[in-house]
Amino acid sequence: MPKWIVKKNFEKLPKLRNPVLIEGLPGMGQVGKIAVDFLIDELEPKLLYKIYSHDFWHSVYFNDDGFVELPSVCLYYAKGKKRDLLFLAGDDQPNSPRASYQFSEKILDMAEELGCREVITLGGIGLPSEVKNPQVFGAVTGKDILNKYSSLKIDFRLGKKIEAIVGASGLLLGLARLRNINGMALLTETYGHPSHLGFKEAKGILTHLKKIIGMDIDLSDLERESAEYEKTRLKLKDEEQEISRLKKLRTHFHDTPDVQYIG
Amino acid sequence: MPKWIVKKNFEKLPKLRNPVLIEGLPGMGQVGKIAVDFLIDELEPKLLYKIYSHDFWHSVYFNDDGFVELPSVCLYYAKGKKRDLLFLAGDDQPNSPRASYQFSEKILDMAEELGCREVITLGGIGLPSEVKNPQVFGAVTGKDILNKYSSLKIDFRLGKKIEAIVGASGLLLGLARLRNINGMALLTETYGHPSHLGFKEAKGILTHLKKIIGMDIDLSDLERESAEYEKTRLKLKDEEQEISRLKKLRTHFHDTPDVQYIG
Amino acid sequence: MPKWIVKKNFEKLPKLRNPVLIEGLPGMGQVGKIAVDFLIDELEPKLLYKIYSHDFWHSVYFNDDGFVELPSVCLYYAKGKKRDLLFLAGDDQPNSPRASYQFSEKILDMAEELGCREVITLGGIGLPSEVKNPQVFGAVTGKDILNKYSSLKIDFRLGKKIEAIVGASGLLLGLARLRNINGMALLTETYGHPSHLGFKEAKGILTHLKKIIGMDIDLSDLERESAEYEKTRLKLKDEEQEISRLKKLRTHFHDTPDVQYIG
Amino acid sequence: MPKWIVKKNFEKLPKLRNPVLIEGLPGMGQVGKIAVDFLIDELEPKLLYKIYSHDFWHSVYFNDDGFVELPSVCLYYAKGKKRDLLFLAGDDQPNSPRASYQFSEKILDMAEELGCREVITLGGIGLPSEVKNPQVFGAVTGKDILNKYSSLKIDFRLGKKIEAIVGASGLLLGLARLRNINGMALLTETYGHPSHLGFKEAKGILTHLKKIIGMDIDLSDLERESAEYEKTRLKLKDEEQEISRLKKLRTHFHDTPDVQYIG
Repeated sequence: MPKWIVKKNFEKLPKLRNPVLIEGLPGMGQVGKIAVDFLIDELEPKLLYKIYSHDFWHSVYFNDDGFVELPSVCLYYAKGKKRDLLFLAGDDQPNSPRASYQFSEKILDMAEELGCREVITLGGIGLPSEVKNPQVFGAVTGKDILNKYSSLKIDFRLGKKIEAIVGASGLLLGLARLRNINGMALLTETYGHPSHLGFKEAKGILTHLKKIIGMDIDLSDLERESAEYEKTRLKLKDEEQEISRLKKLRTHFHDTPDVQYIG
Repeated sequence: MPKWIVKKNFEKLPKLRNPVLIEGLPGMGQVGKIAVDFLIDELEPKLLYKIYSHDFWHSVYFNDDGFVELPSVCLYYAKGKKRDLLFLAGDDQPNSPRASYQFSEKILDMAEELGCREVITLGGIGLPSEVKNPQVFGAVTGKDILNKYSSLKIDFRLGKKIEAIVGASGLLLGLARLRNINGMALLTETYGHPSHLGFKEAKGILTHLKKIIGMDIDLSDLERESAEYEKTRLKLKDEEQEISRLKKLRTHFHDTPDVQYIG
Repeated sequence: MPKWIVKKNFEKLPKLRNPVLIEGLPGMGQVGKIAVDFLIDELEPKLLYKIYSHDFWHSVYFNDDGFVELPSVCLYYAKGKKRDLLFLAGDDQPNSPRASYQFSEKILDMAEELGCREVITLGGIGLPSEVKNPQVFGAVTGKDILNKYSSLKIDFRLGKKIEAIVGASGLLLGLARLRNINGMALLTETYGHPSHLGFKEAKGILTHLKKIIGMDIDLSDLERESAEYEKTRLKLKDEEQEISRLKKLRTHFHDTPDVQYIG
Repeated sequence: MPKWIVKKNFEKLPKLRNPVLIEGLPGMGQVGKIAVDFLIDELEPKLLYKIYSHDFWHSVYFNDDGFVELPSVCLYYAKGKKRDLLFLAGDDQPNSPRASYQFSEKILDMAEELGCREVITLGGIGLPSEVKNPQVFGAVTGKDILNKYSSLKIDFRLGKKIEAIVGASGLLLGLARLRNINGMALLTETYGHPSHLGFKEAKGILTHLKKIIGMDIDLSDLERESAEYEKTRLKLKDEEQEISRLKKLRTHFHDTPDVQYIG
């Protein structure tokens, strides 16, 4: 049995309007994480659950105050325009098949209790080299959600490009499907190098996500970060500087799920 | 404890005539999978169980409609001439010793409940290079089944060629033996490269299996696929095209059990 | 929880005279296995338990009749001169820490129920090259058993040579110690190559073991096998022939515990 | 469920004055282990618990008398000047995420029962080459303990240097934080080579620890050992001698947690 340590940050579970769960955990190019962390900075959603787990990496990280803290994953909610938003963000996700399934079931239990009937997972498709104009691909759990979002300028033939979506970004959709919850993955091409940070790619995903959640979010801060990252990277000669930059983002990289690029 | 999500596709368990279970899960050269998937296309058996498991790969695939779906394994049945047939086919099989044992026990429980007293597993013996005239070898759980099938033109001295049959193709037989269920493996030589698709080898196995199940199955479609595969492969220069071809078959390759070639 | 499938081969547990358990499972140089398998051939002990386990390799092997069978471990007993003998032999041993501990506890439970208060484990110390005159080293759980066997011409300073005894050969002793059961390891230098078969080294161990169990066992058959093995090996140019020879011994090699050579 | 074999070495749990737990298990450069083993030699604390676990390496080591023994971890206490001391030392620590979490929870349960409200973990930051003047860094669980120890000449910006503290040295702090127990890691730069022994670095840590626990401990023995180690190492040409030296210290190295150096 997995051991969860779940800290509730509410007295009464909020009543949400048709909330959509948006997942952005560490993964390929850190695209999903950068995108959702950015949304959390911008929209300042309220923390609902902070989850520690015996299936996360057996380590501690440094939080914003520089204090050591166990890796955790947090579930937030924000009031949206027409519907409310749930965000799943954090430091880690379980690494083995069984633990990854159990984690995803757990998250869906929490989301369902909050009335969630739609899940959108974000991530990257790791390519063997840098991508000039990264394209965003979509994948869905069924016809209903495909029709709902077919007007978006997203190529929904992800299955032509990759074989599988690995980790929480995949399992949350697959397990949602079994619960008759709609699911969609938005995956962008990115550079598969473990130390690459896909700012530009995250921006690409958010451009579509803005339309999906019907909110006008200013992406200029992310653009600036992306430009700065690109500029610095051009100058970098030694890996060490790049790594110290990574650290500032408090992302960690012992694992990069999302997808294996196969064709 | 493993977590199974089993979807029943029947109201009442069908009464079968002395059914034989034929297994063709992903493995070496995908031979077993290609063979059983072909039989399923030809004979259109009825789905009994669709099984998802926390021990399958923590990922989602793309189904025929392009929608994401958890990896699953299915049990089908078809009415045969003298006896009925059970087919075990799917996307994955568990990877660790304990999970593989638990999976195989589970499948045998289901087969036994359907009255099955004979199991035939199909697979490949991975050789280090391409095989011009792949030979089919057999292995059995005891004398009764050896006598039953001794008239087949199969070399039953598999034990001279390999040391062990790995994964479900082996465990289903070993565990069947403990239940006094007869078992036979039909393994063909194949190219052990993880991206090789043993169409030709699958055809070789089916030639024998036709006699075993006493049915006249037209293998010309498989022959065509095999010829096309061979032709294309000759032309291929880059791996990418080959991989995209693999994808069309919706097989996946993160693991190739069946046998380790040892001599 | 581990799953054990234990077949009892007796109606009533035999009453044994102060039995000593002698372990010879697959390991470094297959020394322990060769030694105990030889004793079983010579002394023809009676089978007590045949043990299958979900923690053994998920595969089937070929038994003497060429039929497929799950890997198993067997416990035998033989009447000895002054005291009786228990033999632990088989195809495999669990591979992970937890499973190896559970397995060793299980075996000690069985041995204790049979009145066993002494355990002797056999194995090899893998050296990086062939050993002309392999030396036998001993290690014990305490003073009593050290005094008991100090007259043997064995170097009991194994701790000067290696850092740890890995797998069942080690754990059976360590766990025995916690039960106040005496334990001794007899480890011989051997060639650590995974395909090496330490016939000569097994003979070296049996020379000592004969004295320990006070029985006159003719080792000439083993000598012959050893000489034949050495002769053939000199001729061998390709690995394949060597491997097919290995297969005849029905040993398998996916893992070689016993010891890691460190100095 | 993990299996623990816990030997109590007391009749009644001692009443301790505000004890601080000091952890020094095997890890990077063996710094923590050397430091705490040295304190145990000097202060001769009383053994409280000896812990064996199914999650330690499946092997036996050789104890001071040369007898084989399971790997174990021990909890000791010593009367201190103003407050009492708990020491955690031993041969091993669990290796996988889940087992490492369970182990650390177990240790904290024991410490809490003894009234412990402060945990200090010791370890190394593995650098890619030898370190002339290794620096000690600190990390804490919160403001209170930071203020308490801010007068020490330790750089508390460990988070600028490394990304994570791995294994028990990290988890004991992270899990302590959830129990409102204060925690601090003292990590020193060290050479990350698996066979390096950080005597000098351990001395560096103890210089700070002396002040923390308010005791005057003579480090000259450790200095001598360090000087001898440095001298011998300069002469060493082959790895074997170094390894045999390692063995004398009864440390083992199949794993080196503490931290991954990242920048």
